[in-house]
Amino acid sequence: MKLCMVGCRGHFGYVLNDLPLLPNVSVVGVSAGTPEDKPTALIEGARKAGHEPEVFDDYREMLDRQRPDVVCVDGPYERHAEMCVEAFRRGIHVFCEKPVALTMEDLSAVENAWRESGRQFAGMMGLRYDPAVYAAWTIVKSGAIGDVRLVDTRKSYRLGERPGFYRKRATYGGTIPWVGSHAFDWIAWFSGRRFQTVCARHSTAANRGHGDLEATALCLFTLEGDVLASASIDYLRPSNAPTHGDDRIRAVGTRGVVEVRGGSVHLINGEEAGERAMPAACDRSIFRDFAGQIAGGPAGLVSGEETIELARISLLALRSADEGRIVSCTA
Amino acid sequence: MKLCMVGCRGHFGYVLNDLPLLPNVSVVGVSAGTPEDKPTALIEGARKAGHEPEVFDDYREMLDRQRPDVVCVDGPYERHAEMCVEAFRRGIHVFCEKPVALTMEDLSAVENAWRESGRQFAGMMGLRYDPAVYAAWTIVKSGAIGDVRLVDTRKSYRLGERPGFYRKRATYGGTIPWVGSHAFDWIAWFSGRRFQTVCARHSTAANRGHGDLEATALCLFTLEGDVLASASIDYLRPSNAPTHGDDRIRAVGTRGVVEVRGGSVHLINGEEAGERAMPAACDRSIFRDFAGQIAGGPAGLVSGEETIELARISLLALRSADEGRIVSCTA
Repeated sequence: MKLCMVGCRGHFGYVLNDLPLLPNVSVVGVSAGTPEDKPTALIEGARKAGHEPEVFDDYREMLDRQRPDVVCVDGPYERHAEMCVEAFRRGIHVFCEKPVALTMEDLSAVENAWRESGRQFAGMMGLRYDPAVYAAWTIVKSGAIGDVRLVDTRKSYRLGERPGFYRKRATYGGTIPWVGSHAFDWIAWFSGRRFQTVCARHSTAANRGHGDLEATALCLFTLEGDVLASASIDYLRPSNAPTHGDDRIRAVGTRGVVEVRGGSVHLINGEEAGERAMPAACDRSIFRDFAGQIAGGPAGLVSGEETIELARISLLALRSADEGRIVSCTA
Repeated sequence: MKLCMVGCRGHFGYVLNDLPLLPNVSVVGVSAGTPEDKPTALIEGARKAGHEPEVFDDYREMLDRQRPDVVCVDGPYERHAEMCVEAFRRGIHVFCEKPVALTMEDLSAVENAWRESGRQFAGMMGLRYDPAVYAAWTIVKSGAIGDVRLVDTRKSYRLGERPGFYRKRATYGGTIPWVGSHAFDWIAWFSGRRFQTVCARHSTAANRGHGDLEATALCLFTLEGDVLASASIDYLRPSNAPTHGDDRIRAVGTRGVVEVRGGSVHLINGEEAGERAMPAACDRSIFRDFAGQIAGGPAGLVSGEETIELARISLLALRSADEGRIVSCTA
């Protein structure tokens, strides 16, 4: 399986990390995808895994010349959509940083190109594979908390000093899509429900000179069956916090509650008294799953439909926050 | 100081608990306030503290005959307002279960009667005096987390089997006012900001036969200065959970984060590396503070203005959820 990699702005590490587990995958080309970035991390990462990819300035030329089976798209956020479309038009499977588009027009173009291509598509919803998240999801799917009625999520990040493209909406896309999308994906995945409405709010206050970047955001969703969900998002985690991110999920069901916090899983239900710590483990990884799926193996955890839907919901939440109104997700 | 107690549906225990600390307070009368309830808990609680109150069927007669300085109002929720008004008209200070009114009309009547009376007024926002909550608030007020930008709160309760009045909106008032008001009070108190808008949602699904009672609710607030806040509210805490309630507060500031969870306080800021457990303690209690304030001592933690405002915000949040729209809090 021939693999090309375009761009290194986000979670291309998901691919590099899995290369040692994928002897049948060969990295045949890398490109930063934009003159603004250097492809150093891609070249070094591939070499470390024993690959000697050709390096291209023009990623389209790379796709044409190397004719890969699959491409990892992780270029400038505002060009994810273009890069996906270019790949699908060439009949290439795509593993793309989320969200896969920053506008509804771009998202339509991606969806159309994907559906016409008949190829595989997955967004980098890699936090589904986080040991605690995956274990909690497995618990929910087992029925241990009954029907999910409420999902609260949190993404809290350190801000640090971010590159210039984070400071403009046009190149960053907004905190709700970039950070919030992880949380929205958990909500969709844990509830198994479709979104019906969103009311979101965000603020650039206290962003320490980061231009358009929203330092805080809150989203309130309704889902089918009167299920409710929230996402609390911020970049105000102190620099000396024990971890970069403080990820939380709390799924409240008719028979119990499961919570992910501090990398651990906690369950309360009718089986035993009190709150129990549950094992946090995931024996799968996202790019290995995707490569296996392409090779005809079982489906990974992330489908093309979910990838498109997550981008759509992220953009609707952003619209809600920008316009200060409730936005329907079903129209 | 002569004290009468009307009703025993909520947190009248705040008064009984503090009686041993208040040798100058004498319980001169108790009344269930409604033929539906028995005043047994009031009589027994007062006797346990060494008082021999007269028992009245008609609380108005009690107020007229016993002429108390202060009354504890904890009758049927839909009659808090009437009872407050009757007391203020007689020149009596009022300590009332929150929310103090279930309709805007009733709330106006309470506010007018209070302002005309010139008497003291405090709602039972007793969770301000919770050791962890009070300690966290003290940390915030000390400036240890900088300016508050985001406040996430949670109230999760066991449902159990609730009496009939919980099952009708007219006598219960709704989960958003009854349970959520605690959380809204933390938001106001920790942020020190005024509410600007609210978007709320709620659902009666999974309420196990409890009629109108909403088992889940979510509220998203904006406050002055672009501060954001959320409240997650549910009655789905499993019966074998370690405590009745799972109360959480997380205040995110420009210089740190403080969190209340599991009765403990956790702080991350620039002073020391990592997350630190902070002492949870409160050397004050709500009714003792109120009685002291009436006697000319320093003000308690809960003002009459805050008591009115909390009821108003609770009713606006309920309106938002009932009508499925964003409601302004400033109009």
